Amino acid sequence: MKPSGVITLLTDFGLTDPYVGVMKGAILGRFRQATLVDLTHGIPPQDIAGAGFWIERSYRWFPPGTVHLVVVDPGVGSGREPLALEVDDHLFVGPDNGVLTAVLGHPGLKRAHRIDASRLGVERLSATFHGRDLFGPAAAVLAGSSDGDLDLVGPSREPPAAFVREGPASARDGVHGRIHGSIHGSLSGSVVVTDHFGNLITDIPSAELPSEGPWRVRLGGRSLNVVRTYADAQPGQCVALVGSFETLELAARDASAAELLGAGPGDLVSIEAG
Amino acid sequence: MKPSGVITLLTDFGLTDPYVGVMKGAILGRFRQATLVDLTHGIPPQDIAGAGFWIERSYRWFPPGTVHLVVVDPGVGSGREPLALEVDDHLFVGPDNGVLTAVLGHPGLKRAHRIDASRLGVERLSATFHGRDLFGPAAAVLAGSSDGDLDLVGPSREPPAAFVREGPASARDGVHGRIHGSIHGSLSGSVVVTDHFGNLITDIPSAELPSEGPWRVRLGGRSLNVVRTYADAQPGQCVALVGSFETLELAARDASAAELLGAGPGDLVSIEAG
Amino acid sequence: MKPSGVITLLTDFGLTDPYVGVMKGAILGRFRQATLVDLTHGIPPQDIAGAGFWIERSYRWFPPGTVHLVVVDPGVGSGREPLALEVDDHLFVGPDNGVLTAVLGHPGLKRAHRIDASRLGVERLSATFHGRDLFGPAAAVLAGSSDGDLDLVGPSREPPAAFVREGPASARDGVHGRIHGSIHGSLSGSVVVTDHFGNLITDIPSAELPSEGPWRVRLGGRSLNVVRTYADAQPGQCVALVGSFETLELAARDASAAELLGAGPGDLVSIEAG
Repeated sequence: MKPSGVITLLTDFGLTDPYVGVMKGAILGRFRQATLVDLTHGIPPQDIAGAGFWIERSYRWFPPGTVHLVVVDPGVGSGREPLALEVDDHLFVGPDNGVLTAVLGHPGLKRAHRIDASRLGVERLSATFHGRDLFGPAAAVLAGSSDGDLDLVGPSREPPAAFVREGPASARDGVHGRIHGSIHGSLSGSVVVTDHFGNLITDIPSAELPSEGPWRVRLGGRSLNVVRTYADAQPGQCVALVGSFETLELAARDASAAELLGAGPGDLVSIEAG
Repeated sequence: MKPSGVITLLTDFGLTDPYVGVMKGAILGRFRQATLVDLTHGIPPQDIAGAGFWIERSYRWFPPGTVHLVVVDPGVGSGREPLALEVDDHLFVGPDNGVLTAVLGHPGLKRAHRIDASRLGVERLSATFHGRDLFGPAAAVLAGSSDGDLDLVGPSREPPAAFVREGPASARDGVHGRIHGSIHGSLSGSVVVTDHFGNLITDIPSAELPSEGPWRVRLGGRSLNVVRTYADAQPGQCVALVGSFETLELAARDASAAELLGAGPGDLVSIEAG
Repeated sequence: MKPSGVITLLTDFGLTDPYVGVMKGAILGRFRQATLVDLTHGIPPQDIAGAGFWIERSYRWFPPGTVHLVVVDPGVGSGREPLALEVDDHLFVGPDNGVLTAVLGHPGLKRAHRIDASRLGVERLSATFHGRDLFGPAAAVLAGSSDGDLDLVGPSREPPAAFVREGPASARDGVHGRIHGSIHGSLSGSVVVTDHFGNLITDIPSAELPSEGPWRVRLGGRSLNVVRTYADAQPGQCVALVGSFETLELAARDASAAELLGAGPGDLVSIEAG
């Protein structure tokens, strides 16, 4: 695979401290020509499921050969293993703690390697900031290489099994890791993230939605109409629609659906006829 | 016009989700060498007037031939038209919903085109994210072209008339779209934005301020002294000065004028002798 | 010195307004090939000490020849002098108001120059935004030069003396400007910043910590265990550890130490045997 030279960054570091900037410094020290794109650093601290959902939904919008650096890492310094993956002509770097579960569930999964500090020539590994000391350098080496060979960062290993948890919470591992639910015979899933606009984004893929007949969306005791765009709703009305990342989304026109519905991540959503 | 290769981004997307990052991915997929600069993504959701003010005040600080991507788009998916403009040796891309009104009022307006998805080769247009699917690609095509020809993104059209609304609110369309007010014979305008420091930025251009004699600034029942720099104020004192974007600004030293004055966007400001 | 072409930016501008973006526009107008990296723009308004701590701890993670632009500048437009420094194979640009004190205390300090607007060819200097009008252009000229010669931006001057204040507050000038404290014979220092995760970062360098025997950390009436990584703590337990920027840090597993301890910048921290 030919690397694009682009590296995306997705973390829970926030933007109030120089952590993201310093990680970029460590990357540029190894690959000066990198094009660095922030996906977001606003993942809630330690929200592995939210990060996993977003990276799986976002990577495809970047050129093939892009390296995606995902660092949500509450277990930094403990036994969790640093991982590099090739999936669907993209490369992924991050801890083996579930944040890459949705990507691991992708049919395009090709190779998995363990990142090895010594192979990267990393001499000093801090106990608390592997984004800077290990994952960033690994991403830089891959993005700056001629062929994106994962051997450059560590030895091959078996792809870790995707985490499978019981019940609705499992839905938060992204649409590929999702357990399909059924409540009274209807298609169901969960809210994964509340976005900046207060839209409630679910893990129900648009491909599974009813293609015929009228249908509605149920959340808590509420039943919502389905529309095509935000502008099709009345001001203040909560509706359901297919979001731009191809999952079902609950939204309100010029208002926050999360506030109006009093809902958030983990809440159950189901589809019903009518 | 020779494009500079720089694309600026101004949206209300916020930074907690990967929306801005994904839009950048779509741009890099079409123009890998783009230099991407965030103006801000902190425009309050759907604040068309605030976005319009800032893009008109900000664009001139970038190299000629820069493409400015402005996406504050509550009507996404509805009938509003996507627009590309050449103004004062800069290119602008955004919805025709008022966000470009202040730019359209600029004497350097040269050409206006309608953005056409098919001319861009866009096959799949989501209903809710035209920043990624249409505006971003249009900006990439223009910035990556040899001559910035707007025909690349769609057919020529008449420049839309600048929105003109009555009363003080009109002032929020930026200094070019502003209706000059008169209260008891004095120059007046409105607060357009409250900035990060709590400064109240108005749409009264510095060029219209009195060049002779003492004058003061009135907001609500308060009358403020005019100074040259923040450091000329006493700690905690509210003053008026010419801001760095060449409009009148109300500020407090080491404090928030917005809090001290209890004021914000839309509030009327006037100049008085004395 | 050969510039790396990288410019880092550290300010208190926040991200809700286009101030950072416009400063980047002014840089790109002078050095189109600059690689711009945000360290952070989330320094609390006018927090000179916090900014000074972070730039001194962060710069070393960037390639030699990087230019570091630091603009926390409450005295903009007043008598404070604009400064350019060469320290430890890096270049620094910012106001002479204490924000560079920790860098000035570095043994690698080589040269100090006063930035001169006329030497930069700056014709119009606003009264309130020298980041855009003076410091940004100076950084661009240095980063885009062949040798990083500080004469390009202004005349040589004596390095300003590092600010030295009495008492614990002095600790906030970064680890190089720090006054070593002693309380009942023990090593002490202060919390400098509370980070995004609620970790309390102190100015006590890891090199000064006890190398032998058991020791604990005292803050207020609390006495904390010392661990190696966040994962070594029990959930909700507050501990002390060596942070990734090589100073003592107080943290809690999957929680905010700042909230749990009710502590923040300026609070005294000491080391005790046992």
